[in-house]
Amino acid sequence: MRTLASLLLIFLSLTASSQSRNWLTFVNPLIGTEKMGHTYPGATVPFGMVQLSPDTDTIPLFTTGKYNPDVYKYCAGYQYDDPTIVGFSHTHFSGTGHSDLGDFLVMPTSGPLQVNPGTEDHPETGYRSRFSHSNETASPGFYGVLLDDHGIRAELTTTTRVGVHRYTFQKTDSAHIILDLAHGIYNYEDKNVWTYLHVVNDTLVTGYRQTNGWARTRTIYFALTFSRPFRSHGARNLKPGRYNGFWGRFNQARDFPEAAAPQLRAWFDFQASEGEAIGMKLALSPVSMENALENLRTEAPRWNFDEIRSAAATRWNEELGKIAVTMSEPADMTNFYTALYHSFLGPTVYMDVNGQYKGVDQAVHTASGFTNYSTFSLWDTYRALHPLFNMIQPARNRDMIRSMLAHQEQSPEHMLPVWSHHGNENWCMSGYHSVSVIADAIAKKNLAGIDAEKALDACVQTAHTGYYDGVDWYEKLGYVPEDKKGGTSVSTTLEYAYDDWCIAQAAQALGRTGVFTEFSRRAQSWRNVYDPSTGFMRPRLSDGSFRQSFDVLSTNGQGFIEGNAWNYSLFVPHDPRGLIEIMGGSKRFVPHLDSLFTMHLPDAFFAETEDITREGIIGNYVHGNEPSHHVAYLYNSTDQPWKTQGAVRNILRRQYHPAPDGLGGNDDCGQMSAWYVFSALGFYPVAPGSDLYEIGSPLVRTASIRNENGTTFSIEARNAGPANMYIQRMELNGKAFRSHTLRHSDIVRGGTLIFWMGPKPMKTLFLPGSN
Amino acid sequence: MRTLASLLLIFLSLTASSQSRNWLTFVNPLIGTEKMGHTYPGATVPFGMVQLSPDTDTIPLFTTGKYNPDVYKYCAGYQYDDPTIVGFSHTHFSGTGHSDLGDFLVMPTSGPLQVNPGTEDHPETGYRSRFSHSNETASPGFYGVLLDDHGIRAELTTTTRVGVHRYTFQKTDSAHIILDLAHGIYNYEDKNVWTYLHVVNDTLVTGYRQTNGWARTRTIYFALTFSRPFRSHGARNLKPGRYNGFWGRFNQARDFPEAAAPQLRAWFDFQASEGEAIGMKLALSPVSMENALENLRTEAPRWNFDEIRSAAATRWNEELGKIAVTMSEPADMTNFYTALYHSFLGPTVYMDVNGQYKGVDQAVHTASGFTNYSTFSLWDTYRALHPLFNMIQPARNRDMIRSMLAHQEQSPEHMLPVWSHHGNENWCMSGYHSVSVIADAIAKKNLAGIDAEKALDACVQTAHTGYYDGVDWYEKLGYVPEDKKGGTSVSTTLEYAYDDWCIAQAAQALGRTGVFTEFSRRAQSWRNVYDPSTGFMRPRLSDGSFRQSFDVLSTNGQGFIEGNAWNYSLFVPHDPRGLIEIMGGSKRFVPHLDSLFTMHLPDAFFAETEDITREGIIGNYVHGNEPSHHVAYLYNSTDQPWKTQGAVRNILRRQYHPAPDGLGGNDDCGQMSAWYVFSALGFYPVAPGSDLYEIGSPLVRTASIRNENGTTFSIEARNAGPANMYIQRMELNGKAFRSHTLRHSDIVRGGTLIFWMGPKPMKTLFLPGSN
Repeated sequence: MRTLASLLLIFLSLTASSQSRNWLTFVNPLIGTEKMGHTYPGATVPFGMVQLSPDTDTIPLFTTGKYNPDVYKYCAGYQYDDPTIVGFSHTHFSGTGHSDLGDFLVMPTSGPLQVNPGTEDHPETGYRSRFSHSNETASPGFYGVLLDDHGIRAELTTTTRVGVHRYTFQKTDSAHIILDLAHGIYNYEDKNVWTYLHVVNDTLVTGYRQTNGWARTRTIYFALTFSRPFRSHGARNLKPGRYNGFWGRFNQARDFPEAAAPQLRAWFDFQASEGEAIGMKLALSPVSMENALENLRTEAPRWNFDEIRSAAATRWNEELGKIAVTMSEPADMTNFYTALYHSFLGPTVYMDVNGQYKGVDQAVHTASGFTNYSTFSLWDTYRALHPLFNMIQPARNRDMIRSMLAHQEQSPEHMLPVWSHHGNENWCMSGYHSVSVIADAIAKKNLAGIDAEKALDACVQTAHTGYYDGVDWYEKLGYVPEDKKGGTSVSTTLEYAYDDWCIAQAAQALGRTGVFTEFSRRAQSWRNVYDPSTGFMRPRLSDGSFRQSFDVLSTNGQGFIEGNAWNYSLFVPHDPRGLIEIMGGSKRFVPHLDSLFTMHLPDAFFAETEDITREGIIGNYVHGNEPSHHVAYLYNSTDQPWKTQGAVRNILRRQYHPAPDGLGGNDDCGQMSAWYVFSALGFYPVAPGSDLYEIGSPLVRTASIRNENGTTFSIEARNAGPANMYIQRMELNGKAFRSHTLRHSDIVRGGTLIFWMGPKPMKTLFLPGSN
Repeated sequence: MRTLASLLLIFLSLTASSQSRNWLTFVNPLIGTEKMGHTYPGATVPFGMVQLSPDTDTIPLFTTGKYNPDVYKYCAGYQYDDPTIVGFSHTHFSGTGHSDLGDFLVMPTSGPLQVNPGTEDHPETGYRSRFSHSNETASPGFYGVLLDDHGIRAELTTTTRVGVHRYTFQKTDSAHIILDLAHGIYNYEDKNVWTYLHVVNDTLVTGYRQTNGWARTRTIYFALTFSRPFRSHGARNLKPGRYNGFWGRFNQARDFPEAAAPQLRAWFDFQASEGEAIGMKLALSPVSMENALENLRTEAPRWNFDEIRSAAATRWNEELGKIAVTMSEPADMTNFYTALYHSFLGPTVYMDVNGQYKGVDQAVHTASGFTNYSTFSLWDTYRALHPLFNMIQPARNRDMIRSMLAHQEQSPEHMLPVWSHHGNENWCMSGYHSVSVIADAIAKKNLAGIDAEKALDACVQTAHTGYYDGVDWYEKLGYVPEDKKGGTSVSTTLEYAYDDWCIAQAAQALGRTGVFTEFSRRAQSWRNVYDPSTGFMRPRLSDGSFRQSFDVLSTNGQGFIEGNAWNYSLFVPHDPRGLIEIMGGSKRFVPHLDSLFTMHLPDAFFAETEDITREGIIGNYVHGNEPSHHVAYLYNSTDQPWKTQGAVRNILRRQYHPAPDGLGGNDDCGQMSAWYVFSALGFYPVAPGSDLYEIGSPLVRTASIRNENGTTFSIEARNAGPANMYIQRMELNGKAFRSHTLRHSDIVRGGTLIFWMGPKPMKTLFLPGSN
């Protein structure tokens, strides 16, 4: 009955909401949980601080000091093929290719107390449990599963900062809830710096976990309450230290009110009658146990799982309804709304209800007039995710920029974030792509209330940080020399050149001539690593010569990161015409690009390339990694622009499937999904920092984009269908439209864009010389 | 010139101050720094948070997992016999027998940079330096020394929360200031949980150190400024972790603005002209780097070492002048004022200028209307130090009680402190002697503004904590059974009995009959471990029998802590007459007590007994440990009371000398010194919790105790002198006084107590049956 009532409640609340549809039915959070997607299936609200999700294994990052490659599968804690669930932890990245988090694992068990997780092969040796996908439900804001070994139905939902658990037991005198503070994703022996537990009373527990991992110095606090008192409790330290015994004066393992040690695991014991549910709410805070308790009391004051679940569903439906589409195939609807769902998982709120958060300077700050966000995977997300936010989450994107500017102010290096999470800069990947996010917001006039001059200063300061990743050499030579700062010198040079163009665009918009001149010059640096003798971008040495050793296919130590010379030689998003020209004009460039999508790669390529499967590749086009995401749109700048339409459709069809293995590479905090959303709508931001989108080929039949200003931008694709991938003609607001670029302002203003589709290219679609 | 001006300033400020004398000339902070005193010679203000003092060695607590007995010498960081100084750290205990702290070691050097401390034998292999006592000056609030190996004059002074350094260099291009965050007292390989460093700019640095030691979970923050910019800086991690390299993208060892790792050591490089001084101010905070900076800016806003030094001296003179004495021997004056100085070193302020502090619940609290104190070595200090504070620091003692009550409220165990420091309970030693401090304040009517009922509730709650150290057994059987909670069962029973008497006294004063009845009964528990067959307190088993194996001299595992059956059998401070009666009356008790002071101990005794030297013992009377501190005053309750006078004088003469090795045992946070102060004045609080002092034998010629209420209590010892140790007669306020006890209220009211002294006992001094 409860489930029925709860579903009814959700249905009612959803039908009453925006655009009057239940978009949740088109979302499958299990997409991407198999193989390389690295998404998590658990419960969260849009941009929520809590990601409450099952973890299916506990493989350590290092085993006796050696990197353990199997850990890579567990970036999001869950792999669809696994037969067991270890427990439910409260923090997860979505789609990353390196990892951290997995805080505060909770697992309900019955029978004799087991304090170790046990093994996948022998789950009966620990607290973990077998499970079956037929007993598993995942939808936005909800995750439920039957834990076979314990006969426990587990249901999870969340608010922004509180994970809410409901565990329905069979009759037992021996019910337990395990709270594992030692558990983590990408854990290893020394990762937990410290853990602390305070059993305040028989329903309230607080504590924290301090780690040294991808986030170098991270402490996350919690406060949890149970729906009814536990009978007894205990804790064990997995790594005893010198002073943990408190002089042996107490038996701390049983019913002692506190514990502190590097690796704590606790348990709480209950009785349960048949079908009885025990509830648990666990709130997070980046600042303190006290703040966690305030978050708990503010966001989830009552014991009403169904109400909280319904509220989460309503919030999701509001967000997903911002783009209402119809599509030819049901599978496409699932792909589209799951992509939109994945696009709205992060950056995540990183601030307590009272506004406090931990800065990158390790101090507590209060966000004044904005919501502070964390988890900025900027090397990925500057490409399409933040541009998507400028379109359908403009207010949130402004707060994300405010968060990035606060980061820069607080940063000991005075730099904008590179890859930041949970009050830490992890410096992952390359470039300084925060500047792209800022320049894109300036270009798209989405910087209301933010001091644009100050934002530009932060960009310039970041780009002038000489000791960062070869910037000093780049400034001196115009490129990063492979012999001085080796490994990724070419891709880094290309990314700096693009980022510098972004700064120049922002400077131009603000009338800062000096900055514009300097960074327009720097933006040309991509030319300095182009080797005309091979026609590729190539590692260059500090003496000006190109490095002799050179393999255009290798992704391993050839001067590129997550890509090879073939891919990266096309990375000049801000000057495609310049690139085409230097590579010999359309005549040479088009066949070159054609071959990218058709060439056959040797097996050795896959052996040495991480992050992607064979399915993540079309020819030598690697969609599973980001550097090529703009490439299909480069045809638009050649004399055969229609090839973009075919290539985009090809990628949309081959790289996204409505199944757990439906993503061919890491979703990368929503970048892969944002690519899908844009491309399915029929356009893509090739060079964030300008207000132009390149026209592709719409997969939607109709789309209605609800702008935050109240206007609506409608898209219609007439005669749409799988075979009709080529645009025959276009109308914008009732007038013929013959450009291969669409302006952002056209969308914001509201209006209608109509495509007429057909099976063959319309080679005279775009006016010659049009933008 | 500067030194002269500075001394003049100090002289002027001191002569203008209370009781118009410079008491500082009688204080030698080096007393107790040799052998077992465990005092530190460095700079601090009364009850200051900063104890800025030289550390002379870096012996680890554990060497490859094994306890290193040599570490014991370095409880306060400094041993007078050592030839080198490693550096100056900012936190030290005074006189403890176990240790911790030693935070933020600073060392100025010149010549090639050396980042390791080097060894005592070869100081040239590290940053440490040889020094000579002839170039060393220590006085309250100031420490100065010439660092021979570097030719640097180091001078240190402090405010409450800020350590102030002045380093005068010889001309060099290569001056360095080392900041060692890894250094600590009682350090060992895993003690540093985490360290963090943020070089904000070229004069400002912040950071913290987190440790797991005696304080299980302690983080202490700092902010430091240099008087002029450094040229370059660097940091090194002594224990590299997985993620410390920030992906190798930076050279963090040189001029990088931040570092974080388990064991950081940093350096700052300067040039110096001949005789140029570089100043440094380092503020502490228990809460945050931001608070440390606020402490710094509030307490030491200017660069004026001499002014700060002068202010520290003035504050010391104010405090020391609260008891103005004259004595027969100059040496006695030094003993007296150094004892008073040592009595005023702690408990220490543990609160930022904004009122915030870290509680024992690991949360940040704000002290409302009181100063929060930490470092409560209560097993030691309840005996004489807190009673001394009730007399001459009543306002501070009230704040200390407020701090203890806040601790109890915040304590996960809901207990008053046992041995607490820096936001942690370390559970050291035995009993729950906070109740004595509270009961003593109630008895002495020094609880204004404190809710006495709530304080009593806290005492009762603490004494009812069954899982604490055998309390459950004690409540069940009336004693702690050696077979159930072994090792210290007898001393623990005796201490509980005394503590329970304290609670009963407090309950009586507050009219809480139920509590009075219950704890008066518990106060008799000492009788349950008295074995009439041997005449000693003896380990008893849970079946009611006494343990067979029994050695009255052994201090090792015989049921006693820091004492043997001989010493502890006299520990019934709250009922001396009951004890004497049970032991056979004065006829048997007096010769028993006489033999304590005269018996010869076997060598084996010293081999197995820690904390004391042969000099710390008179016969089998162990003054170097606390359990006997009341014993000399027990004669007062026999028919030969005059023997107290002889025994007290004997202890005063033999256990205190105005020399570095002048203390025969650990000063124990001022308890040894407080014993001296009371006994030299001629009376002693045998049973804190009552308002009575037992009369001893004054060593002072005159004393003037300045009460906080404005009254003065004067003591005169006429015909005083080393040989005249026996009181012939007494007058209180002009009337004959014939009691062996003095009431606290007589002191508070103000008045004059006159002793007439002589070389022979006046056996009819006290009225028969007088209290």
